[in-house]
Amino acid sequence: MRFVSVRNMARWIGATGHERIISALVDDLEADFRRWPEFTKSPRFAAHSPLGVIELMPANDREHYAFKYVNGHPSNPGRGLQTVTAFGVLADLDSGYPVFISEMTLLTALRTAAVTGLAVRHLAPVGATRAAFIGAGSQSEFQALAVRAETGIDQIAVFDVDPHAGHKLRGNLAPLGFEVRVAASAEDAVLGADIITTCTADKANAVVLDDAAVRPGVLVNGIGGDCPGKTELDPRTVQRARVVVEFEPQTRIEGEIQNMAPDFPVTELWTLLDSPGAARARPDEVVVFDSVGFAVEDFTALRHVARAVLGTPFEEHIDLVAEPDDPRDLFGMLPAPMPVA
Amino acid sequence: MRFVSVRNMARWIGATGHERIISALVDDLEADFRRWPEFTKSPRFAAHSPLGVIELMPANDREHYAFKYVNGHPSNPGRGLQTVTAFGVLADLDSGYPVFISEMTLLTALRTAAVTGLAVRHLAPVGATRAAFIGAGSQSEFQALAVRAETGIDQIAVFDVDPHAGHKLRGNLAPLGFEVRVAASAEDAVLGADIITTCTADKANAVVLDDAAVRPGVLVNGIGGDCPGKTELDPRTVQRARVVVEFEPQTRIEGEIQNMAPDFPVTELWTLLDSPGAARARPDEVVVFDSVGFAVEDFTALRHVARAVLGTPFEEHIDLVAEPDDPRDLFGMLPAPMPVA
Repeated sequence: MRFVSVRNMARWIGATGHERIISALVDDLEADFRRWPEFTKSPRFAAHSPLGVIELMPANDREHYAFKYVNGHPSNPGRGLQTVTAFGVLADLDSGYPVFISEMTLLTALRTAAVTGLAVRHLAPVGATRAAFIGAGSQSEFQALAVRAETGIDQIAVFDVDPHAGHKLRGNLAPLGFEVRVAASAEDAVLGADIITTCTADKANAVVLDDAAVRPGVLVNGIGGDCPGKTELDPRTVQRARVVVEFEPQTRIEGEIQNMAPDFPVTELWTLLDSPGAARARPDEVVVFDSVGFAVEDFTALRHVARAVLGTPFEEHIDLVAEPDDPRDLFGMLPAPMPVA
Repeated sequence: MRFVSVRNMARWIGATGHERIISALVDDLEADFRRWPEFTKSPRFAAHSPLGVIELMPANDREHYAFKYVNGHPSNPGRGLQTVTAFGVLADLDSGYPVFISEMTLLTALRTAAVTGLAVRHLAPVGATRAAFIGAGSQSEFQALAVRAETGIDQIAVFDVDPHAGHKLRGNLAPLGFEVRVAASAEDAVLGADIITTCTADKANAVVLDDAAVRPGVLVNGIGGDCPGKTELDPRTVQRARVVVEFEPQTRIEGEIQNMAPDFPVTELWTLLDSPGAARARPDEVVVFDSVGFAVEDFTALRHVARAVLGTPFEEHIDLVAEPDDPRDLFGMLPAPMPVA
């Protein structure tokens, strides 16, 4: 079984280039979103516990099956652990054999950024020049790269309740040509911004940005609200916006719209890809991309990496699936048990 | 992350002994079934396709989370592949970190046998001396070992539509002290048997044993019927039997009782463990153990192996989960992207 370790994923990303991968993933996501009805889809399967959630996210088309294991434990960093870790597996649908396993902690960061990139490509106001980010945690640099990949914007403002986090982001992005302003508040950060991305990690119904600070016509990417009881946006913002989602049944459970009525109108992103400008009825309409992360996106990311590393030094092989000489004789694959005397 | 490969699983089984592991697993299963209400349980998540099914089976208690990936593709052997392959993962519930990954193709064979062992321990007629098996595929030798581990029975009869399969089973089991009669029909095989185990693989509503051949008072372990549209027993047998299941909501979907009315009465196995003899109202009552395989059993098996191989040469380590120095700085874990000139 083909295997991409954390170390090899990091090396592959370094050798290929972060932005180049994110751009390629945006293209792959667009291709898979355009064939959306071909996928077997379901909301992810979540095991909630007092400190977090563990999720399994499967999706398949007619050839491949993929799933991701991912956790979300907001208190982990206080114990020196990451909030989110992940790995994923690709399988052949006709045989059921798993064929590829990969770390996905790093890959999920790239694919989550690429999903924002796809939203920016289709939902951002025309002529956007400034971007703001609320939350400067693990996901923030990747989000900034995705926004730049689609718009060229490299002047950004950021706010995080932890000032150290904002400076970490500036330190990471400045060498890449970004001008990063570390803002004193969320409202300060979004001044003049055309694209606002919220990516915070609290497991709570938080309001990280007052609705009054959201200007007409902007795009708000709500990335951090992604499980029951975990939202980020001011419900007034959601209420007045055109809300775009990935997969409605899952977003009703996990997204910002869990705070809205069950029939609150939403639009699935894949339906907008063929109609440029369809996201906004009027130029001053606020669009909220209520992103929670969906299994088809991990399917896309896994297939991308599986293709990209094939035959390169970035993949190894592990012995995870039994291959007996005679498939009907699993017993014969084992060392002979002690015969009876 | 700790890792048990196929090769190491086979070596561990060989070094420890098949029957010894099955016996230990029966004890561990009994311990976990006795604390059944402590588990978070759900029917498994199945992706059906024309040639088979791929399933994810999660379960957790308050400390650990486990899931198994498993496929079932009955036409695989015709292409030199196994019907079933599997692997599984154990995680720490409080951190969400996966800590152990293991092959489970071999391990599932042992745990499936051990589940039968647990059923035999509690549901077999008193003084059982003869066992019969319908189906001599991958699972059959393990089933025979489990029945012997609990009852001492080593005189068995077997029938398979493929005569070669019955002889394979005899060849594998004779050196272990079994007397194996390869029968000419299912009805011939079960003559005089007290314990009948059906473990066939067809994805169909088959009848592998006519009801007229099922004597009063026997235990029928129905192992092979385990997904929608895949059953083995004569509905008349199920209708007149006391039916014992693992987890009712899943068995309603996957078990023999999918052919019965939705309110057909069943008893969950865990409720019978404290009451010896509770399985039968009368000695001549037929008991059907309608086994489909449940996630808690994989949880038990994974924890058993994780404990057993700790610190031994049977485990390795793989680099599947990222461990950045600063958990908030995933970006900083990557090689520095090319700075802007």
